[in-house]
Amino acid sequence: MSKQHKKDLSLIYGKMSKLLCLSLVLMIPSPAVMAASPEAALTIGQNYTLASTYLKEDRPYSVYLPDACKTGGASAPCPMLYILDGERTFHHASGVLETMSLHGQIPQMIMVAIANTADRTGDLTPTHSLDDGFGRQDPSRSTSGGGERFLDFIEHELIPEVEERYKPMPYRILVGHSFGGLITLHSLVNRPALFQGHIAIDSSLYWDNNSWLRQAEAKLEQMKTIKNRVYVSVAEYAPKGNMDISNRFERPGERFSYALKANQSPHLQSTYQQFAGEDHGSVGLPSLYYGLKFVFDGYKNLPPSVESQGLEAVKAYYRDYLGLYGIALSPPMAIIANLALTAELNNRYDESIAYHTYNIKTHPKSAGSHYALAETYRHMGKTDQATIHYKKVVELHPKWAEHIEVMMSSMSQEQ
Amino acid sequence: MSKQHKKDLSLIYGKMSKLLCLSLVLMIPSPAVMAASPEAALTIGQNYTLASTYLKEDRPYSVYLPDACKTGGASAPCPMLYILDGERTFHHASGVLETMSLHGQIPQMIMVAIANTADRTGDLTPTHSLDDGFGRQDPSRSTSGGGERFLDFIEHELIPEVEERYKPMPYRILVGHSFGGLITLHSLVNRPALFQGHIAIDSSLYWDNNSWLRQAEAKLEQMKTIKNRVYVSVAEYAPKGNMDISNRFERPGERFSYALKANQSPHLQSTYQQFAGEDHGSVGLPSLYYGLKFVFDGYKNLPPSVESQGLEAVKAYYRDYLGLYGIALSPPMAIIANLALTAELNNRYDESIAYHTYNIKTHPKSAGSHYALAETYRHMGKTDQATIHYKKVVELHPKWAEHIEVMMSSMSQEQ
Repeated sequence: MSKQHKKDLSLIYGKMSKLLCLSLVLMIPSPAVMAASPEAALTIGQNYTLASTYLKEDRPYSVYLPDACKTGGASAPCPMLYILDGERTFHHASGVLETMSLHGQIPQMIMVAIANTADRTGDLTPTHSLDDGFGRQDPSRSTSGGGERFLDFIEHELIPEVEERYKPMPYRILVGHSFGGLITLHSLVNRPALFQGHIAIDSSLYWDNNSWLRQAEAKLEQMKTIKNRVYVSVAEYAPKGNMDISNRFERPGERFSYALKANQSPHLQSTYQQFAGEDHGSVGLPSLYYGLKFVFDGYKNLPPSVESQGLEAVKAYYRDYLGLYGIALSPPMAIIANLALTAELNNRYDESIAYHTYNIKTHPKSAGSHYALAETYRHMGKTDQATIHYKKVVELHPKWAEHIEVMMSSMSQEQ
Repeated sequence: MSKQHKKDLSLIYGKMSKLLCLSLVLMIPSPAVMAASPEAALTIGQNYTLASTYLKEDRPYSVYLPDACKTGGASAPCPMLYILDGERTFHHASGVLETMSLHGQIPQMIMVAIANTADRTGDLTPTHSLDDGFGRQDPSRSTSGGGERFLDFIEHELIPEVEERYKPMPYRILVGHSFGGLITLHSLVNRPALFQGHIAIDSSLYWDNNSWLRQAEAKLEQMKTIKNRVYVSVAEYAPKGNMDISNRFERPGERFSYALKANQSPHLQSTYQQFAGEDHGSVGLPSLYYGLKFVFDGYKNLPPSVESQGLEAVKAYYRDYLGLYGIALSPPMAIIANLALTAELNNRYDESIAYHTYNIKTHPKSAGSHYALAETYRHMGKTDQATIHYKKVVELHPKWAEHIEVMMSSMSQEQ
């Protein structure tokens, strides 16, 4: 097949459009939730309880476990995300994880959501204080100060239980909001190696009349080897009545972010984001999304210098991405598929085939990867190889039989 | 009790802090997903199929039905949200709805997610075209052009079935992405009264070599009575190889948004948002969030002129919010609770009590509303009334017994 003929075919049948359009349909595995049979309930997770010695109670928690993260799954071992206020965060947070990982923005992850019991204030506050952030005493805080006990529960009871069960990679993120953000940053400052990523949302950093903040700042000054990515967000506060409520969340949040920026640890990356138009409650959802984008900065968007060097450089990039923690990642399927497409558009067919082949090798059940490789072979005029992979698509994804029939019949007319 | 004494109590015990901190815990009803018993599966919806005459198939769809939207529920009747590509959107979209409604950003809604079957392209494209947006022919589009049939299925089969079952309010939103965005905007232009809100995400508006777009522009010029809110978003495209792929989604999306802005219907509101740093897939999740914020603009943030006039003005505001469609809304609990707080901070105790009482009347099972009213009575020195509502909290939410004990004991020492 002449080069000119290839170009004509490219003009007639297009290389790019189908992949782009199908990327939403076929390139990515269907989420587990819709795999259930019709008329059945849609299930996204499992509830557990842990008999805690530290907390002296049976503590409920819930787990979101993508198929790819199960033992032997395509993405196993996976990182872990721990999130507080689980009774309110599980549903949307697991949906955010599922969707962001489908688009290659973050890895597939296992999520553990810790539910509150009777004493949220006690669990999530690091010291005893009745001060309410306006210099006044609040009796509802009489049980405050159980934060270290709560972190002991997480470190010595919860993490061992779930990580023994799922065998994840040693990379954990902690997400908390309000008091949950306070204990999240308390964990960062006092147990800096327990979690490798922290997302702290509109955190109650006024705690204990700012004395928690002053201690945290002093500790951060002494810490030179933090290996972490830390995302700090705040809502937008306008004065209400006579009170400037920005003193409670916004200003201490910003002040803490300065202390993070001033920290000299070479492997600490942090950012601070304020959300205009969001209040203390509504800031949670966008913060989770943009927080995960920050914690996995560079995971989806490769440096052009890496991309230009082909598959081995890309593999090396992901191998080193969490190398700080002794973790070697594999390139995500969605990223590799995009690289294959770009290579093909630039007539680097061999490189494109190498990418597709890598995806098939690492995700043998991905109909989308076989489809993409079949398309590349078709554009090259290699109909025999194209046919092999078109047939594989139907084998893996029988619903697409009719569509593949059209593609193969069209290909035979190109001969 | 003297005014001075009241002020002192305010300084000592604080009016605002507890409400703000508890707002995440107690003011809002717990999502249904965590109501399941420990060790049980977390369920967020139900799968159905509909034997469709238009589509000549059993079409699967899934439903997210919050308790508050069930017949007789606290928020019933609710608006409906219909979303395409259901097998990939159900989980995160239902989580976004749950969380945004908990924070009063949008009403509680019922969501129907329509899953794809074998021919997504056929269902979601309005005309027959093999053109792939670069002027080339794409055989995978041989079945394109079934969009009107698909909209007939939605209008004459799906909507009657689900709305007979759930008796929602006559307010519907349609959400679609890519080809789904194309059919969403096709529905707007050709069946403008079928949905009252449209969220179209990185839509394939290049369709049929821009001839769909030209027809839509011509139709919009003639339409003077559209009553709708329309959100159009696009991703950020950089050229790949020799192709300027912004021609496919970004430029026609912007062009369509100009046609919307130029439309003379007095009750058409539209916006256009481009997401830097998001691609065709990843733009879906932030678009859903900001799209819902746009469709329900003004739902959470009242004009100050309304807020200053008290409960009756607020009720009138919500009664009229969807008045265009003959729908009278009630004020959301979270908004009323915030207004009560602001009133109390400004020493308008009677107004604060009126707000709390309204919340209790409309949500009799809300422990948070009783708690907030008890607090207001305590700050007023009305311990008898405070006690009544503290006890009601424990009755509705026994886990808080210990906490309420502390509050009541502290109150008795204030005497």
